[in-house]
Amino acid sequence: MSSTLWRIPASRLDATLDRVGRPVQSTDERDDLIARAFWHVIAEPGDAAVGYLADTGSLVAAAQALIDGCTPATLVALSAGELSAEAATNAVRRWTPRLKSEDVVRALEIAGTVGAQLLAPDDDGWPDGLDRLGPHRPHLLWVRGRTELAPRPSVALVGARAATGYGEHVAMEFAAGLASRDMVVVSGGAYGIDGAAHRASLAAQGDTIAVLAGGADRLYPSGHDALLTRVIDQGAVLSETPCGTAPTRWRFLQRNRLIAAMSDAVVVVEAGHRSGALNTVHHALSVGVPVGVVPGPITSAASAGCHRTLRTSDARCITSTTEIMELAFDSPSGDGAVTLSARPSAGSTRVRDALRPRRAQGVDELARATGMSVDEVRAELGLLQFEELAVEEANGMWRKSNSPRPAPAQF
Amino acid sequence: MSSTLWRIPASRLDATLDRVGRPVQSTDERDDLIARAFWHVIAEPGDAAVGYLADTGSLVAAAQALIDGCTPATLVALSAGELSAEAATNAVRRWTPRLKSEDVVRALEIAGTVGAQLLAPDDDGWPDGLDRLGPHRPHLLWVRGRTELAPRPSVALVGARAATGYGEHVAMEFAAGLASRDMVVVSGGAYGIDGAAHRASLAAQGDTIAVLAGGADRLYPSGHDALLTRVIDQGAVLSETPCGTAPTRWRFLQRNRLIAAMSDAVVVVEAGHRSGALNTVHHALSVGVPVGVVPGPITSAASAGCHRTLRTSDARCITSTTEIMELAFDSPSGDGAVTLSARPSAGSTRVRDALRPRRAQGVDELARATGMSVDEVRAELGLLQFEELAVEEANGMWRKSNSPRPAPAQF
Repeated sequence: MSSTLWRIPASRLDATLDRVGRPVQSTDERDDLIARAFWHVIAEPGDAAVGYLADTGSLVAAAQALIDGCTPATLVALSAGELSAEAATNAVRRWTPRLKSEDVVRALEIAGTVGAQLLAPDDDGWPDGLDRLGPHRPHLLWVRGRTELAPRPSVALVGARAATGYGEHVAMEFAAGLASRDMVVVSGGAYGIDGAAHRASLAAQGDTIAVLAGGADRLYPSGHDALLTRVIDQGAVLSETPCGTAPTRWRFLQRNRLIAAMSDAVVVVEAGHRSGALNTVHHALSVGVPVGVVPGPITSAASAGCHRTLRTSDARCITSTTEIMELAFDSPSGDGAVTLSARPSAGSTRVRDALRPRRAQGVDELARATGMSVDEVRAELGLLQFEELAVEEANGMWRKSNSPRPAPAQF
Repeated sequence: MSSTLWRIPASRLDATLDRVGRPVQSTDERDDLIARAFWHVIAEPGDAAVGYLADTGSLVAAAQALIDGCTPATLVALSAGELSAEAATNAVRRWTPRLKSEDVVRALEIAGTVGAQLLAPDDDGWPDGLDRLGPHRPHLLWVRGRTELAPRPSVALVGARAATGYGEHVAMEFAAGLASRDMVVVSGGAYGIDGAAHRASLAAQGDTIAVLAGGADRLYPSGHDALLTRVIDQGAVLSETPCGTAPTRWRFLQRNRLIAAMSDAVVVVEAGHRSGALNTVHHALSVGVPVGVVPGPITSAASAGCHRTLRTSDARCITSTTEIMELAFDSPSGDGAVTLSARPSAGSTRVRDALRPRRAQGVDELARATGMSVDEVRAELGLLQFEELAVEEANGMWRKSNSPRPAPAQF
């Protein structure tokens, strides 16, 4: 079936998968992995239409349909109605130009060349935090280095490329402090704060993960080629964009959502008014990951974004590694905050993201989708129902409310 | 009557009052002013027992009683029951050793010598913000310089004596910025941040008030003698402690409550872990005055108190004069805060402070006590009743609830 589905000989596919650490045992297994790679070639990171198809377990069927030249109606059906006719039409329109099965194989072959391995949602090494992204979650990761690191407790240290000596110093102090507490340091491999964080983590014999915007085969920026090679040796470099693809502005922004969702907390060490690190803050707030901000001199433009974040969001002021640990693991520090926050809990956000407005789901299905226990899901549903964000149907199934209250304002 | 009340010839009192800008027209007027000076000689700043006596208009009668050697029961009666027997006993015990009418005259004569003038609660120049201090409010101020400044819109700039160049730079920028917006800059005349604020305000042709811990006759610290002399020339130096008294630790802490209550906002520019400026923050939060904090490098011990304040209270991060104006006048800046604050409004605090647990008061009396309109008082009472902090009696009079909910946690 595979050769007609993917228009590529099964033997070639199997050899390719074998080289990326995925020797498959069955046709279904092969199709599932290839489909995931396919969708990441066809669609940009964060494409929710792919997410809806993944929700119904239709990645393979939808790939087949698309390759065969399907109508939007087929996708609507495959998504169990989650995709509207209009959304499905737009999806077919944007995906079709990129329909080249050969690209999938090329991506996998490049991965094999550089020693990248595939990580799929059911794998032990899959960071479950990514589930928080709901329909915008990735369906496959490409990893060079240690594939077991991503699910471990971690803190993202992010910030400006145009960092000052102060910012780099703080990033290095925090990275070393987190290493001594066995926390994985996640960052983006960029110049400035990211580089300082990775560098100090390595020096402290800590674990660090660099999440790249382009394929894991190209270590970007080029000036960090040696650093990222060391990160691969001691830690991991990963991406959701297939090997062979270039980083683009959109992919940089989407990469930030991975950094945020994978971590137990995001700490912005230094950021100017327009720093990309503020985008990572936005993603963290969206999925309920705690955000910390390091202040600096108000005379320093490099800290202006940090200060604005402090003023306009629930982000907490961070001045030590101890405070980062408290931020990540939710224990109040010192006198405790007086502030009542309108930020939803991570569990609430996960259940909310899993709910669909047009397709009711049972508690079991929601538990699987969110990676939470049935009891936890029931508890969150109760609260969401109280807030009129979830609706229980007569048959005990749940769907997202059609006329929700506005979400709490976010950065 | 005065000569027997105060044991000093009326003519001497009148001459003294005349020299401090208070030529009196009647015995009652004389007695009222002398009583106020008397109580500030007898009692330390913030003595609530004096406040309760002032509430019932009994400052003169209580002074007479004390001079004649009264029993605590007399004070209980004069306070209409607000003072318990135990509190009255303690009050008599602590006041009696300081009972020397001569001290009152000496304080007034020193005031006359240095050109200080008296400011009483009914005067136009009295800063009504002080009413927020309730029973801890002062009953007389001693002012050198311009007596009309104190009620004007103002911002307190406070901070460490051990300021850094960064802190002094920020204090000067803010002081100049506030001067250009016709805001009065209030501070404590101390080394470091206070001095920088006063200096820059003067340089920008702005108005500034220095609130001292000791009598206004002694310009403290001595190294600021020239600076404070210039403040007297262009602005004002004031104190609640009578001329001739020395600054003590307690008086420094109490002086901070004046700085806080007089201002529309308090901004801490730089403060170490144990800085006295944090005490001023505490007072501001207690009376509902908005608090702003300037962050700095987390590597700077001089900013550690600021950062702790940001983490543990409702204080807002401040990076510009514009943000200070928004803090003071309550308009949200930019995206607005997501945070729901548990801080009570200034009006709520004033009415709450005016209420007594054992003595019911009518709305008119509360309006007079708080300096608010009857309508505003009614509105606040409604809210306080809802929060179970105020109780309405059958006759329409109001008293403080005997079993209030705990107050919001404060710094």
